[in-house]
Amino acid sequence: MQFFSSDFKLGILGGGQLGKMMLYETRKWDIYTKVMDASADAPCKIACNEFVQGSLMDFDAVYQFGQDVDVLTIEIENVNIDALEKLEHEGKKVYPPTKTLRTIQNKATQKLFYTDHEIPTAPFTRFAYTSEIEDSIHNGGLQLPFVWKSAQFGYDGQGVKVVRKIEDLQGLPNVECIAERMIDFKNELAVIVARNTKGEVVTYPVVEMEFHPEANQVEYVICPARIDPKVAEKARDIALKVSEHMKHIGLLAVEMFQTKEDQILVNEVAPRPHNSGHYSIEASYTNQFEQHIRAILGLPLGKTESKVAGVMVNLVGAEGHTGDVVYQNMEQILEMEGVTPHIYGKRQTRPFRKMGHVTIVDEDMAHAREVAQKVKETIKVISE
Amino acid sequence: MQFFSSDFKLGILGGGQLGKMMLYETRKWDIYTKVMDASADAPCKIACNEFVQGSLMDFDAVYQFGQDVDVLTIEIENVNIDALEKLEHEGKKVYPPTKTLRTIQNKATQKLFYTDHEIPTAPFTRFAYTSEIEDSIHNGGLQLPFVWKSAQFGYDGQGVKVVRKIEDLQGLPNVECIAERMIDFKNELAVIVARNTKGEVVTYPVVEMEFHPEANQVEYVICPARIDPKVAEKARDIALKVSEHMKHIGLLAVEMFQTKEDQILVNEVAPRPHNSGHYSIEASYTNQFEQHIRAILGLPLGKTESKVAGVMVNLVGAEGHTGDVVYQNMEQILEMEGVTPHIYGKRQTRPFRKMGHVTIVDEDMAHAREVAQKVKETIKVISE
Repeated sequence: MQFFSSDFKLGILGGGQLGKMMLYETRKWDIYTKVMDASADAPCKIACNEFVQGSLMDFDAVYQFGQDVDVLTIEIENVNIDALEKLEHEGKKVYPPTKTLRTIQNKATQKLFYTDHEIPTAPFTRFAYTSEIEDSIHNGGLQLPFVWKSAQFGYDGQGVKVVRKIEDLQGLPNVECIAERMIDFKNELAVIVARNTKGEVVTYPVVEMEFHPEANQVEYVICPARIDPKVAEKARDIALKVSEHMKHIGLLAVEMFQTKEDQILVNEVAPRPHNSGHYSIEASYTNQFEQHIRAILGLPLGKTESKVAGVMVNLVGAEGHTGDVVYQNMEQILEMEGVTPHIYGKRQTRPFRKMGHVTIVDEDMAHAREVAQKVKETIKVISE
Repeated sequence: MQFFSSDFKLGILGGGQLGKMMLYETRKWDIYTKVMDASADAPCKIACNEFVQGSLMDFDAVYQFGQDVDVLTIEIENVNIDALEKLEHEGKKVYPPTKTLRTIQNKATQKLFYTDHEIPTAPFTRFAYTSEIEDSIHNGGLQLPFVWKSAQFGYDGQGVKVVRKIEDLQGLPNVECIAERMIDFKNELAVIVARNTKGEVVTYPVVEMEFHPEANQVEYVICPARIDPKVAEKARDIALKVSEHMKHIGLLAVEMFQTKEDQILVNEVAPRPHNSGHYSIEASYTNQFEQHIRAILGLPLGKTESKVAGVMVNLVGAEGHTGDVVYQNMEQILEMEGVTPHIYGKRQTRPFRKMGHVTIVDEDMAHAREVAQKVKETIKVISE
């Protein structure tokens, strides 16, 4: 098979932590890889076979990179799609396909996609410019409060703001955006769907994002979600419907809200390995990174069931710390059973920067969840 | 902690498959690594931070390499111990310690170690030269048949021969050697013991090497061994006794025979990650490579229990094939559930060369064993 020989080259756009974890799998199968990232210090720089420094948003850089590989994939969506499209037209295998990326990259387009395909999602209005919103509120077309989201480049929580009163609009960029109804949800769930080049599809179990009661920030990703099996089935069905219409190749992580009335609403999707699937490295028969590689290379998809219960805790930079990173109390968490830290290898920490994650696995979910809390209370990502 | 910062450097002597799998763990924890290997195509070359080409048996190369790292470990025993000893005397942390390596590197010394410490092992006689053996047979000091083993450099089955009649001695090198009584064993077992710099010790479950009924070659490594729990306990106790006296730091893989009378006899040991522990990547809470890193860095040792049953199949080069390697029917084995191939990344295959391994995991051991057989019957390592 060509992938397992030396005349095949896999290209990965983006050299961050997701790419780094993907590289464990390409190394395991001795697949030749070439990675491009804007940073010379990218976590992927070692462990890939070739590294190129270049901007993922630059047409020429992406186009040139793509010409030198056999299959091209991404670890981040913010890439130059025009270049990918040209490569695709020239016959290059680009996974996810650019059509999927175009739908996802613009949040207004993504929301319209859901309504077009009768996929439940929070009601929203699209605006060509933020400045149009105030009029719409005044003439009764839009109710406060709502969630303002810029249509483009909303990666990692930027470009999102809760608007409770008109003054909250001040300072927002005057760009294409959506105003989305605030959902009073009881759970945030996610399902990872894998789809290979031959159309085979599998789903991972539904996971639950547990929020901090006050900070309103995801604290734990829990697999399987501690929800009614019927709700889980509904979430899986909806994720499969999104996948079917999205016609992605590779993974699709579908984030959803479970409302107080047990409705499932799709929030957003990512066409790649995802934070909500990191638990799979330790807990699943086939981890999400291996699954992505299987999918884009047209290999049979692996078993998505879990061996044991898994809980994932993100390691983010502590507030008040900027500079050379130190992982405080690492030894203490290594003393706890079933605990695996992953350090992404970013040299500099800053408040809330994703610096790593810790997976806790156990036969007993309640015990894993308890240990996860201890981990979270123990380890600190600070500067020297 | 120093290991998780950029001013710590771990040195690994040997850049083969064991080193490669160790590097997944150093990458996971972002530990800076420097590797030396004689081959410019060593599987470790990518994924380590620094690679040096050099002979592991060369005093100057090893000494110079060691001076540039903070902790020095090995992935193969055949290294220049004099250089390691000098480094150790100068205060360098060398794990396993050279004393352990000296005991192990010479098979006669290793056997004497067992008898000195009342560790059960097959009876043997040491000879300064192979040429002395014939006399010993003639004057009744040694009975045929026996297993001839050269004292030095017996790695990977070389330097071992079953001697059934005097003529079998012809062609053997005239070197220091042992003649060991042939053991009529019903199982070959192994236990991996981890011991960290602080003296903490843990053991992995007893594994069983299942032999091909005719070829007398290990076909499967099975965890846990399908043996009487009392025999397993005895094997673990003996492995712990070897570990205690060996005073190794890091892993010690203890290979043993279970005789027809359920006696346990130590065969040989390896002071590093071992083929008999590869199953742990997919099956154990803490895989053997992470455990070795924990041990040599003085970190708390991880949980050695298994999440699921594991069976490992070695991928060796097929007979009659020498040249650029091809993994035939890879796709078919990826279709089977719970199957994870590991391809070491050696470009050239030759008969019986270790080219990779496949782990099969399942909740049910009998099912894992069945799938393992299918894997073995399906995949072929051939040349182009």
